[in-house]
Amino acid sequence: MSDAMRAVAHAPGAPLTLATLPRPRPGEGEILIRVRAAGVNRPDLIQRAGLYPPPPGAPETLGLEVAGEVAALGAGVSRWRLGDQVCALLGGGGYAEYAIAHEGAALPAPAPLSFTEAAALPETVFTVWANVFESGALKNGEALLVHGGASGIGTTAIQMARAAGAVVYATAGDAEKQALCERLGARRAINYRSEDFEAVLKDEGGVDVILDMVGAPYLQKNLNILKERGRLIYIAFLQGAKGEIDLMRIMLKRLTITGSTLRARPLAEKARLAREVENHVWPWIAAGKVRPVIDSTFPLAQAEGAHARMQAGTHAGKIVLTV
Amino acid sequence: MSDAMRAVAHAPGAPLTLATLPRPRPGEGEILIRVRAAGVNRPDLIQRAGLYPPPPGAPETLGLEVAGEVAALGAGVSRWRLGDQVCALLGGGGYAEYAIAHEGAALPAPAPLSFTEAAALPETVFTVWANVFESGALKNGEALLVHGGASGIGTTAIQMARAAGAVVYATAGDAEKQALCERLGARRAINYRSEDFEAVLKDEGGVDVILDMVGAPYLQKNLNILKERGRLIYIAFLQGAKGEIDLMRIMLKRLTITGSTLRARPLAEKARLAREVENHVWPWIAAGKVRPVIDSTFPLAQAEGAHARMQAGTHAGKIVLTV
Repeated sequence: MSDAMRAVAHAPGAPLTLATLPRPRPGEGEILIRVRAAGVNRPDLIQRAGLYPPPPGAPETLGLEVAGEVAALGAGVSRWRLGDQVCALLGGGGYAEYAIAHEGAALPAPAPLSFTEAAALPETVFTVWANVFESGALKNGEALLVHGGASGIGTTAIQMARAAGAVVYATAGDAEKQALCERLGARRAINYRSEDFEAVLKDEGGVDVILDMVGAPYLQKNLNILKERGRLIYIAFLQGAKGEIDLMRIMLKRLTITGSTLRARPLAEKARLAREVENHVWPWIAAGKVRPVIDSTFPLAQAEGAHARMQAGTHAGKIVLTV
Repeated sequence: MSDAMRAVAHAPGAPLTLATLPRPRPGEGEILIRVRAAGVNRPDLIQRAGLYPPPPGAPETLGLEVAGEVAALGAGVSRWRLGDQVCALLGGGGYAEYAIAHEGAALPAPAPLSFTEAAALPETVFTVWANVFESGALKNGEALLVHGGASGIGTTAIQMARAAGAVVYATAGDAEKQALCERLGARRAINYRSEDFEAVLKDEGGVDVILDMVGAPYLQKNLNILKERGRLIYIAFLQGAKGEIDLMRIMLKRLTITGSTLRARPLAEKARLAREVENHVWPWIAAGKVRPVIDSTFPLAQAEGAHARMQAGTHAGKIVLTV
């Protein structure tokens, strides 16, 4: 058994290539995972462009989530044994044959799912739980609007919100993506190119929670369609971060605007989220109510193709690397 | 005993005058209060100018809070007896000898306080509780910034936050108001005319919660000085409602922007707030930790002078009408 491994190397402006790197060693409280699949996420593209440096201590290698088998245990690890099948949220380093996770940021790979599907879970499920259910406090019977409903986050948010008894609306860019959103349980998917989501949702009586990754262009429309005590939650701003708000509207309807990133959260917070996700979302997965939508898989050596597909924006669901 | 009463009449552009009106009759679940003192609030000035119509069913007469004795009981009222000394949040009608309150929006007038002081409580205490403690979830050891620290709301917020174990900063417009804020427990009151509150509070390490009534001009500075997971709460926008926000900053620090008005809340919500206030704030008043700061009192016939004083903006604490 060699101490080397294959991993994806990146540099701004250059194509992704395979490189040979030393296999990482798990520190205290960490596990080494033999990666079988790694999720591709938009922050990977931004980090690769040099605009999103990894947090201190994180590996340079891209990749925020993986599924695979536990291959080595660091000191003090109590929950996992060698060979356990897990999926995990990482500080980075997922585009590789081996990756390090903190034991608290790993979860058992759900039995009904393949490694490819399990690797598609952590980023989307943690993000939706933290934002829609914790910050947004979405409740049974309330209405949620998911922008980008056909994205990895969007397809997960639709299913989780339906599992929790909410009514879900989504926006999507073409008829196929609309159909996907509605198949996953959205009451109505709105084509944002040909329809005005503000007008449609005013007709529907408004919504209680909005999950947005579009940003500035939707800000005022979002505030307009929120019901009293509505919550507007940002997890990205693909079309701009700076927008005008009307404090009067916020006060009169008692609205809340908030948002978060997952990666910047401290480890203890990620471990807390992992426990919440295991308690609340894993049973939905076991019951078949939530299942990741896989757009496509690419072998590790074709990571460049995976990034090109995400950049093009025509995908629906998650893009996953197989290792 | 006549069925008439004196009350303050208002019309846009005309001075406030005394008029004779029929004494109101309490409906089901309502009490009639013989008003001894009525708080003056900024929404009264806006309503008088014709810009803030009373909610449906509310009296035309100004006045959102009073203290006095229970003078008649509507059907089904169980909590109060004739002669009980109460203070109450009203739908309107407080600038009068008699006013109607829902029994759930009334509280026992605290023993250590005069009627004048008790009448100064409901708007400020309900507002601070709902915004700083409920929406803002201010906790022991956290830091609060109160803009307009010498206002009725400000002086109350400083004392309540100190009673809850928070560190408090305030802004104020002159040395006398600064001294008042610090006497009430603010660690530091910042003169917003001669100092940059953003620079001062960055030096202090930032704050967790901000209570703002200034609005647009402070929006970005407020977001800049909030710590991670900070909450920015609007209860007014005296200098403009429309301002630009940066969603990236909100996401990276996981900030929350929210706000509310008290008057627009449904009755059941006001009654719920009244119970919370009685449970949490009344003990602070009994213990001498919270006491309303009275700027000045005016007899009912001099309501015009009370409004002129509030309009001038030189007051510190509450302006109260005595009846």
